[in-house]
Amino acid sequence: MKQFHVVGIGNAMVDILARAEDAFLDQAGIGKGIMQLIDMDRAVDLYSRIGPAKEISGGSAANTIAGVARLGGRTAYVGKVKDDQLGAIFAHDLRAQGAVYQTSLAPKTATHETGRCIVVVTPDGERSMNTYLGVTEFLEPSDIDPEMMAQAEWIYLEGYRFDGPDSHAAFAKAIAACKGAGGRVSITLSDPFCVERHRDAFRRMIRDDVDLLFCNRAEMLSMYQTDDFESALAQAAAEVKIVACTHSEHGAHILSDGQRWDVPAVPTQIVDATGAGDLFAGAFLWGLTHGHDLETCARMGNVAASEIISHIGARPEADLMALFRQHGLV
Amino acid sequence: MKQFHVVGIGNAMVDILARAEDAFLDQAGIGKGIMQLIDMDRAVDLYSRIGPAKEISGGSAANTIAGVARLGGRTAYVGKVKDDQLGAIFAHDLRAQGAVYQTSLAPKTATHETGRCIVVVTPDGERSMNTYLGVTEFLEPSDIDPEMMAQAEWIYLEGYRFDGPDSHAAFAKAIAACKGAGGRVSITLSDPFCVERHRDAFRRMIRDDVDLLFCNRAEMLSMYQTDDFESALAQAAAEVKIVACTHSEHGAHILSDGQRWDVPAVPTQIVDATGAGDLFAGAFLWGLTHGHDLETCARMGNVAASEIISHIGARPEADLMALFRQHGLV
Repeated sequence: MKQFHVVGIGNAMVDILARAEDAFLDQAGIGKGIMQLIDMDRAVDLYSRIGPAKEISGGSAANTIAGVARLGGRTAYVGKVKDDQLGAIFAHDLRAQGAVYQTSLAPKTATHETGRCIVVVTPDGERSMNTYLGVTEFLEPSDIDPEMMAQAEWIYLEGYRFDGPDSHAAFAKAIAACKGAGGRVSITLSDPFCVERHRDAFRRMIRDDVDLLFCNRAEMLSMYQTDDFESALAQAAAEVKIVACTHSEHGAHILSDGQRWDVPAVPTQIVDATGAGDLFAGAFLWGLTHGHDLETCARMGNVAASEIISHIGARPEADLMALFRQHGLV
Repeated sequence: MKQFHVVGIGNAMVDILARAEDAFLDQAGIGKGIMQLIDMDRAVDLYSRIGPAKEISGGSAANTIAGVARLGGRTAYVGKVKDDQLGAIFAHDLRAQGAVYQTSLAPKTATHETGRCIVVVTPDGERSMNTYLGVTEFLEPSDIDPEMMAQAEWIYLEGYRFDGPDSHAAFAKAIAACKGAGGRVSITLSDPFCVERHRDAFRRMIRDDVDLLFCNRAEMLSMYQTDDFESALAQAAAEVKIVACTHSEHGAHILSDGQRWDVPAVPTQIVDATGAGDLFAGAFLWGLTHGHDLETCARMGNVAASEIISHIGARPEADLMALFRQHGLV
């Protein structure tokens, strides 16, 4: 038995969540519903303009790992923070969920701080993300422990981390160690603009190394540079063993070995869409590593996504296993 | 016209909110429903034992000031933080609500950090608070700007700050400046054990300087060392111009000039009781400084308290003025 069901690698971030009307997005030059990278000056300016906020640990892959851990899966996470107060908050919240977190801290003297994401939530529950990466940008091969990767049934790579040049090498090191020990590789495309920035690198990795691809419809279309969703799904299915593509209120499409399942979403009141995709992936991976078939994994993913969008914050608050029981999934 | 409707002075804190079962309180040695002062070692130990948390600006008087500001009142707040990440969060959240916050920061090199309160919320919504004061403990007379106090229609003093020896002198300086310019003084007793620790100082200040006393039933009983609530209310009413005593689901009792109003609570589902008294005081003070009679002020207080206990966190999320309109108060 391997030590970990899932090991995630991604951007370690604390989310700063504030509510605002749509007009504020225009005034502040924020693109609605997407993730924009910002520098420290912009982060300071934007923070001075948003209303009162709540700080909640986030980070896409970290949210996914928190979800797997919440379900009782054995997990670890790699993503850099600084030895500062936000870094301590991030580390605490992952460990408190039961995940292993032993990434080397950037020292107190480091120039860059722990990464943060200013998330502006509009009345429709849509989140517009403004990310100051800070030290998480500097994830590099030396941060990857090959022993840990060899002990993973699955590794889960966050597409956002393609925004760091040394992180490509870190991902390659993790993949080699994981696959060398018989483990499998999953990835999330994270964001259509992230795909736009790194399409070739994504395509290469998907073709060569990825066993399970997570994405949403917009990311899928960006990846294959088409408006034809069915054609994009078919192309992905030809390249990857399992494709799990979420599609907002339409649920998720799973394609594998020539089969396809269209799994409806679980209706809920959207309060804050942050983390829907992350928790879909977390629940899906928990199902996959606990003997469930792909359709059930997708249904679990949809249940977890509906829980996460019903409240502020991208980490689960309800007992996900109890929700699975209510839906007859376990 | 004075520059400020209300100026608050208190412990500047960031709340760290985590949910737990009642059994955890016993295991961790936490007294249910009260505030305990803890040192840094205990804060580190306790933090390592709680589950994933959310960080939200708190501090009793700061919550009150945020409430007055949210309603459009002109406010300022005095309470010390350090030049660190939690300090920046605290300052941002007050300013973003519209309050003036110009307290001198403790430098990055200071030994103590920005204060924090580990709030454990049990399934019944009760909050058990564990406060590491940090730099906020060192509020002293030099932190009080007499000009600001002279520009206040009301100052609002947080009883918790009686736990700092130099803060008594700071309060005395603020009172002298405020009263010297024709302003009035309100105080909250904060906590029955805080009253126990500083009963004589509280009694002296109430008799000599206080125009408006906020407290709840337990604090009132502790103040007058009796189990007879009616007797305690009568003693307080004999000493203070206006007494506003909250009484959980029974609402609030207002006594002034030989008159009395018993104002029923606004029923709601309790999610997290943190801040109920703070927001009662904020709405009451807003009413008082905007020409409303005492009964209406209490009804406003009850509406604001019901909003605050319906969600996690001690700062208002809903539009309080809209709620006042719904209840026919404005």
